[in-house]
Amino acid sequence: MANEIKKIGVLTSGGDAPGMNAAIRAVVRTAIYNGVQAVGVMRGYNGLINGDVIPMDLRSVSGIIHRGGTMLYTARCQEFKTLEGQKKAADFCRSTGIDALVVIGGDGSFRGCKDMAAQGIPCVGIPGTIDNDIACSDYTIGYDTAMNTAVEMIDKLRDTTQSHDRCSVVEVMGRNAGYLALNTGIACGAVVTVIPEVPCDIDRDIVTAMQETRSTGKKHFIIIVAEGVGRAHDFAEIIEKKTGIESRATVLGHVQRGGSPSLRDRVAASRMGYHAVQLLLAGQYNRVVAEKGQDIVNYDITEALTMNKVMDPELVKIAQVISI
Amino acid sequence: MANEIKKIGVLTSGGDAPGMNAAIRAVVRTAIYNGVQAVGVMRGYNGLINGDVIPMDLRSVSGIIHRGGTMLYTARCQEFKTLEGQKKAADFCRSTGIDALVVIGGDGSFRGCKDMAAQGIPCVGIPGTIDNDIACSDYTIGYDTAMNTAVEMIDKLRDTTQSHDRCSVVEVMGRNAGYLALNTGIACGAVVTVIPEVPCDIDRDIVTAMQETRSTGKKHFIIIVAEGVGRAHDFAEIIEKKTGIESRATVLGHVQRGGSPSLRDRVAASRMGYHAVQLLLAGQYNRVVAEKGQDIVNYDITEALTMNKVMDPELVKIAQVISI
Amino acid sequence: MANEIKKIGVLTSGGDAPGMNAAIRAVVRTAIYNGVQAVGVMRGYNGLINGDVIPMDLRSVSGIIHRGGTMLYTARCQEFKTLEGQKKAADFCRSTGIDALVVIGGDGSFRGCKDMAAQGIPCVGIPGTIDNDIACSDYTIGYDTAMNTAVEMIDKLRDTTQSHDRCSVVEVMGRNAGYLALNTGIACGAVVTVIPEVPCDIDRDIVTAMQETRSTGKKHFIIIVAEGVGRAHDFAEIIEKKTGIESRATVLGHVQRGGSPSLRDRVAASRMGYHAVQLLLAGQYNRVVAEKGQDIVNYDITEALTMNKVMDPELVKIAQVISI
Amino acid sequence: MANEIKKIGVLTSGGDAPGMNAAIRAVVRTAIYNGVQAVGVMRGYNGLINGDVIPMDLRSVSGIIHRGGTMLYTARCQEFKTLEGQKKAADFCRSTGIDALVVIGGDGSFRGCKDMAAQGIPCVGIPGTIDNDIACSDYTIGYDTAMNTAVEMIDKLRDTTQSHDRCSVVEVMGRNAGYLALNTGIACGAVVTVIPEVPCDIDRDIVTAMQETRSTGKKHFIIIVAEGVGRAHDFAEIIEKKTGIESRATVLGHVQRGGSPSLRDRVAASRMGYHAVQLLLAGQYNRVVAEKGQDIVNYDITEALTMNKVMDPELVKIAQVISI
Repeated sequence: MANEIKKIGVLTSGGDAPGMNAAIRAVVRTAIYNGVQAVGVMRGYNGLINGDVIPMDLRSVSGIIHRGGTMLYTARCQEFKTLEGQKKAADFCRSTGIDALVVIGGDGSFRGCKDMAAQGIPCVGIPGTIDNDIACSDYTIGYDTAMNTAVEMIDKLRDTTQSHDRCSVVEVMGRNAGYLALNTGIACGAVVTVIPEVPCDIDRDIVTAMQETRSTGKKHFIIIVAEGVGRAHDFAEIIEKKTGIESRATVLGHVQRGGSPSLRDRVAASRMGYHAVQLLLAGQYNRVVAEKGQDIVNYDITEALTMNKVMDPELVKIAQVISI
Repeated sequence: MANEIKKIGVLTSGGDAPGMNAAIRAVVRTAIYNGVQAVGVMRGYNGLINGDVIPMDLRSVSGIIHRGGTMLYTARCQEFKTLEGQKKAADFCRSTGIDALVVIGGDGSFRGCKDMAAQGIPCVGIPGTIDNDIACSDYTIGYDTAMNTAVEMIDKLRDTTQSHDRCSVVEVMGRNAGYLALNTGIACGAVVTVIPEVPCDIDRDIVTAMQETRSTGKKHFIIIVAEGVGRAHDFAEIIEKKTGIESRATVLGHVQRGGSPSLRDRVAASRMGYHAVQLLLAGQYNRVVAEKGQDIVNYDITEALTMNKVMDPELVKIAQVISI
Repeated sequence: MANEIKKIGVLTSGGDAPGMNAAIRAVVRTAIYNGVQAVGVMRGYNGLINGDVIPMDLRSVSGIIHRGGTMLYTARCQEFKTLEGQKKAADFCRSTGIDALVVIGGDGSFRGCKDMAAQGIPCVGIPGTIDNDIACSDYTIGYDTAMNTAVEMIDKLRDTTQSHDRCSVVEVMGRNAGYLALNTGIACGAVVTVIPEVPCDIDRDIVTAMQETRSTGKKHFIIIVAEGVGRAHDFAEIIEKKTGIESRATVLGHVQRGGSPSLRDRVAASRMGYHAVQLLLAGQYNRVVAEKGQDIVNYDITEALTMNKVMDPELVKIAQVISI
Repeated sequence: MANEIKKIGVLTSGGDAPGMNAAIRAVVRTAIYNGVQAVGVMRGYNGLINGDVIPMDLRSVSGIIHRGGTMLYTARCQEFKTLEGQKKAADFCRSTGIDALVVIGGDGSFRGCKDMAAQGIPCVGIPGTIDNDIACSDYTIGYDTAMNTAVEMIDKLRDTTQSHDRCSVVEVMGRNAGYLALNTGIACGAVVTVIPEVPCDIDRDIVTAMQETRSTGKKHFIIIVAEGVGRAHDFAEIIEKKTGIESRATVLGHVQRGGSPSLRDRVAASRMGYHAVQLLLAGQYNRVVAEKGQDIVNYDITEALTMNKVMDPELVKIAQVISI
C-alpha cells in the first residue's frame, strides 16, 4: 500500500515562520531520495484550487535552508473553507497525480488537512508557527527564531532603557499563548512577564515587583507583555502613573516573524520534513509530526487537534524568582 | 596656555547613541596618555549640579568600546537650563579642579556647552545622535548603528511581507530629519521613502509608484516613513484603502537607539574623542568636533549651532530611480 | 537537614561557554530568594585554593544574562588535582562558611565536584560546555549558541563559496564529539559532515557524494569537519586533488566559544541554576543537573560520570538524505 | 553621442564582496529607468568569451540588495589575459549589441576595462573589494561589511579571551593593505595592530605594549595582524614565549568576504551603480567611479590605476593612544 505514493505536494499555510523553507527542502529531498516526485503548491490551499503548483527537483530547494519566509508563499483561502472548494482541491490533486500532501502550518492548516483527508487525499501535517501553540508538539518550527529575534531586539532596547533609567514595556507575539513571552522574559531578565495563562494584578505583580527591585538598587526595568493580554502602550501608561518611572512602550511586531532561521529551527524542520515523507511512504496517513523531548513522534490529526497544551508552572515560578 | 588643563570631565547628554562609550573611552585614554586626569560626569549636566562624578583611569573604560548606551548615563536637566544652575555647575567644576569638559550629544547638549563656556569652563562638543541632524558634521556617532539596526529589522520584515504578498509600512526614527529614513530606504530597497525634507503626495508618490511597480510583477512592498512625517499606521490604512494591497504598519522604535556600535561608529567615536582632547590641550576651547569627508575638523560652537544641513537631492533621486 | 545550607559558592570551570553567566545569575538569585547567601569563586577551583571569592548580591548579577564568557573567569588548576589542594579548598570553604558549591562546567569540573564531596563539601554540577559531550544530559549550556555562531559564519562563507563555484571545508569545534558538527552540518546544508562517531571513507563518502550532487547541477559545496576527525586543511587539499574543485579550508576556532548566549542557552541556564540551588536546599547533594527532553532532572555525580552518550543514527541518516 | 548606448553589460570580477549585488541592481535599474537595456555577464570576463550572458529586467534584480556574494558569479579568466581573448570578448559585445560595460571589482578588473576599451568597448569601473586597496577611491564596496564581520567575530572572541585571561592573535584580511586591520583594531580595542604600512618590532611594539598595559591591570589582550604581515600562529607562538601569557591564534578567513552587506555598502553600491550608468549615458567612457569624502566622483581609468593610497598616520597614532 505504502508504495502507491508517487507524487507528493507540499504547501505552507497560515502565518509564515522561519524554518518553513528548511522543512520544504527536507520534504522535497526525502521524497526524491525515495524515488517519489515532489511538487510545490503555491500560496497555501489556494494553489490546489487555482492549479498553481511548481515541479520541484533537488536543486529547486538549494540555497533556501537559511532563508526566512516561505518560498511557496502563504495566504488565507476562503474558497477552501467550503466543501466545494475542498472537492475542487482534491480533484486537482487527483487529476495531476498528487497522491499526498505535506502541509506546514498551524492548527488551522491541520484542519485543512482533515478536510483533504475527508476527500481522499492522504495528508501529513508539520507544526510551523512562531507561537508554539500546537498542543501535540513540544516544539513548532519558527518558535526559536522568533524568540531569539525578540531577545536580540530587547537586548538593544536594554541599552537605551538603562542609559535613561527608564522602564520599557515590550509587547511580543504569541497570539493567545504565552510561551514566546515567558521564555523571552526569562532570557531578557524581564522584571515581570505578563502572559495570558497567569492572571496579572498590576499593583501586586508589576508595581510592587518594580518597587521591591528598585529598593535593591535597580533603576531600569524591562517588562514583557504577551500580545494576548493587552497593549503595551496601555501598560506603560499605567506603570508610569503608578510608579513615577518614565515608561515607554515598544511593539516588536512582525519583525519577529522573519529572518534567517536559527539552528534549532533548521534542524527541527529538517527532521520533521524527513519524517513527514517517511510516514506517507509507510502508509501512515493523516498524521501530525511532532517533537516530544528529543524525539520526533506523530499523532492522528483528529486526535492532535483535540489535545491541550499546559504552561509549565515551574517555568512561571523560575521567571519570578530570578527576576528579583 | 594649553598646559593649564589638568583635569577633564566628560559627559553624555540628550538621547543616548551607540558609540558614546567608545567616545568616552577615547577621551579618557587620550587625556591620561597626555598626563591629564579624567573624570566621568553622571547623567549629563545633572552630574555637575549634584556633584555626581567618578574618577576614570585607563581600566575604567576597558570592555566598553563594544557596548551600546552610555556608561555615564544620560538625562534631561531642568535646573541646568537656568542661569543659577549653570553657575552651580561651573562652581562645582572649579571647586573640584575640572578644568574643561567634553560633552557628547546633540545640539541641545552643545547649547549647554555654550552656557558652561559663558561661565568660564572651556568645553568641546562631540556630535553624538542617531539622527545625524547636527549641521556642522557630515556624521554623528550612532547614526550608522541605528541605520544598520533598522535595515536588519526591515530585512526580517521583508521575509514575512514577501511570503504574504503584503505591503509593510515601516516608521523609522530621525526626529525632524530624513537622513536615517532615506538611507535606510535605499538600503532596504523600499519602493517609497517619505521624509520631512521632500513633500509627499500620497496618490502620486505612493499609490502610483506601487501600481507601476506592481505592473512589472512585484507583489510585496516596503515603504519607509520618517517619524517626522506622520504615523506609519495612518499611512498603512490609507495605502490599503487606495491600493487594495494588505498593508501593515511597524514602528521600529527605541530598538534603533541601542545595540553594540558598528565599526563606523566605534572608529568615528574614537577619532572624535581623541580630537576633542587634543583641542583642549592645544588651548582651542569651545569648539565642536566634526567629520568632513574623511577628515576630522572643528568649528566654533556658536557658529556650529547656526549652520544648516541640506538633504542631498541626488540621493533622493537615486532612491526613486533604483526602487522601480 | 536541608536547612543547614546558609552560604553557597558558585564557580565556573574548564572551557567557558555562553550562558554560564545566566547560570551564575540564576544560582545567586535563587539562593538569595531562599534566604541563602551567595559568593562567587574566581577562576574555577583556583579561587578556593587562593581564597579568591567575592560576595554576590542581587545586583551583582544584573546586566550579565546576555553576556558571553563568565564573569567569574575560568582557569585550569593544577594544585586542585592533588589531594592536598582539595583539602586546602575544602578547608577554605569551611573557614569562610561556604556550605556547598555549584560548579558549572564539563566532566572534568564534575570530577572536581566529586573530590570536594569527598572532602565533605556538598556539590551540585551544572553541565556547561559548547561540545554537548556530557553523557547524562541531552543538553549542555553553550551548545546552542556555539552552533548558531558556527551556522552564521558558514552562512556568510556560503556567499563567497557560491560566487566562486568553490568547495569550503569548515572545521568546527566539539572536541571528540560530533554533535556540534552534525547539527551544524544539517543546518547549513553541508553536502557532507565528517564526525568522529561515523567512519569516513573519503572516496566513497566525500568525493562520490560531491560528484553525484554536481551531476544534478550544484556547483558549490560546504563540507563540515568535526575537530575530532582531523584538520580542515588536509581535507581541502585531498578534495581539491580528487575532485578538481577549488577547495578552501576555514577553521572557525574560538569565535564559537563566545558571543551573547542564545535564548535557548539563557533559558536552560536559568532553569538549571534554579534547580541546582533547589537540590542543595532539599539536601540532595552531589548531583548533576541535566536536561531530559523538556524536563530538568538530576543524577548522582558518580553515576553521571559513568554514563555514555550515543549519536542518534537517524540524525546521521537525515543529514545524508537531505544533502543530496 | 551619449545616446548611442542602447545596451549595457554588467559583470563582477575578482574576489567577491558584499554589496556587489546592490551595485548590479543599481546598474540594471538605472539603465532601464533611462530606456537602456541591461544584460548580466556571468563569471567575470569569462561570460564575454563564452557568450554566457543573461537578459536583466527590473524584477531580475529584486530581492538581491541584501544578499552577499554576487548573483553574476565571479572567476578568474586566463583567456581574457591574452589579446586574442580580449578581441573575442569585444567581438561578442559587438555581435550581441552590448554597447558598454560596467565592471565591478578591483584593480585587476579595471585593467580588464582598459583592455576592453582598447578594443573599442566603452567601460566604467566600480570599486568593489573588501580590502579598500583601490587608490582613487576613499571607499570600496564590501569594505564596511567585512570590517563589521571581523569586529563581530572578535567581539565574540573577546568573551572567551577575557574569561581565560589570554591573548588572542587575530589574522584579518586586507591583502597587502592594512586598512581593514587598522580600523578593525581600533574598533575592537586591540592592544596592538600590526599592518604592512608600519614596521613592527615585536619586542618594542608588542611585548612592551602588553607588559605596560598589564601593569595597569589588564589581563587579556587582543592583537590584530593584517594578512600582509605574516601568520597569526607565528605571532602567537612568539608572544606566548616572550610574555608568558597564553596566546591563541585565530584566522578569520573567508567568512569576512560574505554576509548580508551593511547599510554603508548597500548605499555606496547604489550610488556608484547609478553614477556608472550616468557616466556612460553622458558619453564619459573609460572612467572609474570613486567616493571622495561625501561625494561620488570619477577618474580616467588609466590615471586611476597609477594613483597611490597612503595610510593616514594620525589613525595609526590614535590606534596606539587609545589602546593603552
